[in-house]
Amino acid sequence: MNQLPILAITMGDPAGVGPEIIAMSLAQEAPYALCRPIVVGDAAMMELGVRSAKVDLKVRAVERTADARFERGTIDVLDLKLIDASQFAYGTVSAQCGHAAFEAVRTAIDLAMKGEVDGTVTAPLNKEALHVAGHDFAGHTEIYAHYTGTKKYAMLLADDRMRVIHVSTHVSLHEACDRAKKERVIAVTELILDACKSFGIADPHIGVAGLNPHAGEGGLFGDEEIREIIPAIEEMRARGWNVEGPVPPDSLFSRARSGQFDGCVAMYHDQGHIAFKVGGFEWDRQTQRMVAVKGVNITLGLPIIRVSVDHGTAFDVAGKGIANPDAMLMSIEYAALMARNRKQ
Amino acid sequence: MNQLPILAITMGDPAGVGPEIIAMSLAQEAPYALCRPIVVGDAAMMELGVRSAKVDLKVRAVERTADARFERGTIDVLDLKLIDASQFAYGTVSAQCGHAAFEAVRTAIDLAMKGEVDGTVTAPLNKEALHVAGHDFAGHTEIYAHYTGTKKYAMLLADDRMRVIHVSTHVSLHEACDRAKKERVIAVTELILDACKSFGIADPHIGVAGLNPHAGEGGLFGDEEIREIIPAIEEMRARGWNVEGPVPPDSLFSRARSGQFDGCVAMYHDQGHIAFKVGGFEWDRQTQRMVAVKGVNITLGLPIIRVSVDHGTAFDVAGKGIANPDAMLMSIEYAALMARNRKQ
Repeated sequence: MNQLPILAITMGDPAGVGPEIIAMSLAQEAPYALCRPIVVGDAAMMELGVRSAKVDLKVRAVERTADARFERGTIDVLDLKLIDASQFAYGTVSAQCGHAAFEAVRTAIDLAMKGEVDGTVTAPLNKEALHVAGHDFAGHTEIYAHYTGTKKYAMLLADDRMRVIHVSTHVSLHEACDRAKKERVIAVTELILDACKSFGIADPHIGVAGLNPHAGEGGLFGDEEIREIIPAIEEMRARGWNVEGPVPPDSLFSRARSGQFDGCVAMYHDQGHIAFKVGGFEWDRQTQRMVAVKGVNITLGLPIIRVSVDHGTAFDVAGKGIANPDAMLMSIEYAALMARNRKQ
Repeated sequence: MNQLPILAITMGDPAGVGPEIIAMSLAQEAPYALCRPIVVGDAAMMELGVRSAKVDLKVRAVERTADARFERGTIDVLDLKLIDASQFAYGTVSAQCGHAAFEAVRTAIDLAMKGEVDGTVTAPLNKEALHVAGHDFAGHTEIYAHYTGTKKYAMLLADDRMRVIHVSTHVSLHEACDRAKKERVIAVTELILDACKSFGIADPHIGVAGLNPHAGEGGLFGDEEIREIIPAIEEMRARGWNVEGPVPPDSLFSRARSGQFDGCVAMYHDQGHIAFKVGGFEWDRQTQRMVAVKGVNITLGLPIIRVSVDHGTAFDVAGKGIANPDAMLMSIEYAALMARNRKQ
């Protein structure tokens, strides 16, 4: 019997690059060596995605997970039949695409909560389309939190060299300074330690950033390190964890890029995001856009596994077969790894 | 007559890597194609530097700039004779080395102020040695500001892909938020525009970062963009400058790395430093240290040219001939470029 984890992959907004990056990914061998994938969305849209991707794959619509065969060469699609193809156009915001994308996510969450799948991977949503369709969520994470009844969660940014969790994200920098509190630093450090264990790392080495330049230089440039961050690190170390810091922010992330940490705790949004994007994104002169070389978001704290590509719908290049599937491949890889370690 | 600019290169603290990276650099052809270099420091220490660097160069002590011959193969050293070689040891803090390093800098500034040299390049100081020697300056920049009578200056970080100036540097992140004021944003934008012109860029394209995540997302995460940064950018644009922003901090620097801006304005220390170091530094497994691949500091706002390597004395590897001269070579290149454009 095939013991590989079953992963539900949502197609994302079909007017974006979701279907084609899924098709490009499932045309490769690697995903089938790691998992049994089933796409949740619209079979007709996946047919278009296969055509855009110029890959030699069949699409097989199924009504239940139990009907999927997980054979390489044929993409199993749990077909929600929510798109009227005569009204479909790539690269445009529409209520039908927003609704179809939403339903794919809601269904994937439901399958994971019932245990029919072992993890979920999400292709990008378009927030405007989501709102036009009447679904008032800020994004994937809020949908997952709502339908799994989760109050405390955090986003992990990950690629092949670096994994970063944030003490705060979408707040002003002023407020971010106030949110660098001992309890919160401990909470996110616990989350990233758990995540590293789910990636199979036995004794993770975690680097915690300072908030201030030079990590405050002994209180000279701010005292949040002394008041909040150092006590948090000391408590984690007292519990036996390999937690280092506070590391000066401008050396933590370059050291992490060199492979010196299994995970990093960033004190605010841009501390982690600048490091991540300078290292992990590059400018594509052909498409005139920043492209994620290989980046994924992992929502930590949920009762189910959720990994997402770290890029958007890219409406401007959708349907052209030039999108880069690397982030989708890495999302599948991370989700499969986490599902395998959870099962054990 | 040789019209190349004359550059004074200070040897830095001789117990560090300064003399050997200067020797490695002056053993190459590139510097002599761009400038006429004279080292300011100690001839005996430069002899040691040549030996450490394992390069085939002679050292020629001179007493005045006018005596220098600027011939490749022989390093002209304005010899201050401040080191007792019998008391010298690599990798240790000493008053004689701190004093010699200080005097080299003071002399170079003096030569530039008198117009005997067209620009200055500095090798790293050791701050502790400086203080042991009784020179109570925080570093190079403060020495330059003092001896040139400069009140308003700013540091530009530069490598071959990216140039970054900061609205604030060594203050707490809380205070950095308060310092993101319209007048200061305009002042540093003017400084980086001037700098870019001195690099020979006719109509520089400058990207100004937001302070908050997503540049505030229209006031949702902080209003400094609306109150201070946007008015500053609008004023610069009204004056005819090609200034773009506020750019979300996590995309500005990855775009800059891709060559999309001639210069970037960072709102606080780590915004620029994280981007710079993640992109420009790498971990050297042999020496177990972060090494600048190619980074320089340029002090803007001074009446004279000053470019410095973006790394320290590296006492742990000094005298071993394994230091990387790339930052020194790039410092010479930048100083020569600025001196040429100032002369024209």
